[in-house]
Amino acid sequence: MKTLSDVGEFGLINKLIAKYSAEEKGVLGLGDDCAVISINSKQSRLVTTDLLIENVHFLKDKITPFTLGYKSLAVNFSDIAAMGGYPQEIYISAGFPENLPLDWIYEFYNGIHQLAEKYDARLMGGDTTKSPKAIVINILVNGLINTENIKLRSQAQIGDAICLNHTIGDSAAGLRILLDDMDINSDIKPLVTAHNHPEAKIYEGKWLGKHKDVHAMLDVSDGIGSDLMRLIERSKVGMQIDLDKLPLSDELQKAAHKYGWDLFDLAVNGGEDYCLLFTVANNKLAEVKSNYEQKFQTALFSIGRVKEKSYGLQFVRKGQELDMVGAGFDHFRKNKQ
Amino acid sequence: MKTLSDVGEFGLINKLIAKYSAEEKGVLGLGDDCAVISINSKQSRLVTTDLLIENVHFLKDKITPFTLGYKSLAVNFSDIAAMGGYPQEIYISAGFPENLPLDWIYEFYNGIHQLAEKYDARLMGGDTTKSPKAIVINILVNGLINTENIKLRSQAQIGDAICLNHTIGDSAAGLRILLDDMDINSDIKPLVTAHNHPEAKIYEGKWLGKHKDVHAMLDVSDGIGSDLMRLIERSKVGMQIDLDKLPLSDELQKAAHKYGWDLFDLAVNGGEDYCLLFTVANNKLAEVKSNYEQKFQTALFSIGRVKEKSYGLQFVRKGQELDMVGAGFDHFRKNKQ
Repeated sequence: MKTLSDVGEFGLINKLIAKYSAEEKGVLGLGDDCAVISINSKQSRLVTTDLLIENVHFLKDKITPFTLGYKSLAVNFSDIAAMGGYPQEIYISAGFPENLPLDWIYEFYNGIHQLAEKYDARLMGGDTTKSPKAIVINILVNGLINTENIKLRSQAQIGDAICLNHTIGDSAAGLRILLDDMDINSDIKPLVTAHNHPEAKIYEGKWLGKHKDVHAMLDVSDGIGSDLMRLIERSKVGMQIDLDKLPLSDELQKAAHKYGWDLFDLAVNGGEDYCLLFTVANNKLAEVKSNYEQKFQTALFSIGRVKEKSYGLQFVRKGQELDMVGAGFDHFRKNKQ
Repeated sequence: MKTLSDVGEFGLINKLIAKYSAEEKGVLGLGDDCAVISINSKQSRLVTTDLLIENVHFLKDKITPFTLGYKSLAVNFSDIAAMGGYPQEIYISAGFPENLPLDWIYEFYNGIHQLAEKYDARLMGGDTTKSPKAIVINILVNGLINTENIKLRSQAQIGDAICLNHTIGDSAAGLRILLDDMDINSDIKPLVTAHNHPEAKIYEGKWLGKHKDVHAMLDVSDGIGSDLMRLIERSKVGMQIDLDKLPLSDELQKAAHKYGWDLFDLAVNGGEDYCLLFTVANNKLAEVKSNYEQKFQTALFSIGRVKEKSYGLQFVRKGQELDMVGAGFDHFRKNKQ
């Protein structure tokens, strides 16, 4: 008897949409971070939704309700950012156990509200109910975008530079610190903050969305190992990533050295970074990078190149192709199912 | 320490929206069946969402996955119908236990698809994940409406006739049959069907929405005792309901007699009928009723009158005001928290 774990939760909904929308090939946004709904000749609505269940997606003892609210919304905002859009409306359904203190619930919504306010997005509706045991949270966000600015996962072109707009791996290290019940000293606190309090790259995504030389884009939710595969599959290309170029924070490098963590495993397979991963026409990379860094006063990192499909996904270090990361990627898949 | 059960789940989300939208008084749709988002000068989008959790909102052993899918969507469609709109897009988030058979999941989505197709609504996105124990389903539906046709709960006018477009109580009786593990013979099968397989009144709601003489409207989800109170509170009126005029099916009346059920408790406090409850200018009642019955070949029932606010909610029988139903109503509230 087959169960969910045989097919994996990733993509089940997309398979279902494809099945039920068979007559409408080319549903824009299918397999992307958001669904795309045309509003008029110029604008589209972007829709994203995430279901979070206690003990699957978060541990109540490891995060404050305020931060959980903030993060729950941030991961949805990040999907809007990943297509170049701007968030507008928020709908929250939540199931709470009956013995959960009201203060916890209010703090949770306060966290949501703080992030919503930052971008003038409005809480427009939802549903609350009791839950027998686990806290259940479903957030849906509607965003707005000029249709011509939409970035899909399928638009990477051979020869493009592959870029990140933030360091990666901090969040995965933060999760490890929390799960291992480590003492959170000032050296590693930024890693925990990166995990619990991600910032959606809304302004950056909107800016990148307007650039015609930026081709494919998504946000780093499951680790670049997994997220690069999504670009590869959707764009029908290959990719070469230079491990030496991966942006790693000083805090992460120091902590990995001190505690004996596998730095590249955290960076490649960790996930929940919620920064943007995108491809840029290689002859425009210098210009885009320079303008971006001037605008946002933060670095943009080029980590590899788009290759032909037959190349697959290859990680290189000092010019040598590596085997080990492929194994890391499989390991990730099994654990994440 | 206060918990969710101290304030009740009803309306918590509306309190929160009101709190966080304090600067925007008069958010259209707040406290109604759907949120209302203006699209352009003529049209609005209606948004409704429902979170269903196993053992709170449904019992897996008492409903097939197909029927659960169908019903989960129907209750959302009913909210769109209740404001006069038409459903367009569907987003489904679902958490499934790892040992749940894939066939169950596919049958669930088949049920959703069957209803969606009936109204040309499209499954546009969602999220699937594993759940530690309970099946979790969140459905959000976007509908379309001409803004001038929107029916709110706040528009009942003193003197209006109060109407239902279907019999009530069958669904509550069906639930009772299921919970009592009764043998489902042909006499009571329609009651179980009414509970498991409600039909959203989409065409009827849209038709009523276009009528200027139809004032306030909602769908009967928690029983008219509770739903009338919503009209009363939002419209700042009172209401008189004639128990003798409540539309009760032959099946319900026979079963109530046979099994000793309290017929009016089921009809008033039962809920999940998902028919439409609305008010009509009294001098236009005959005309609306006649046109409706000709159009839909089914009866429209007038069950009472809108009174001044100070009148409150009163049930009458043979011209006498009754006390007992108020108690039934409180009883319902406590059980439904």
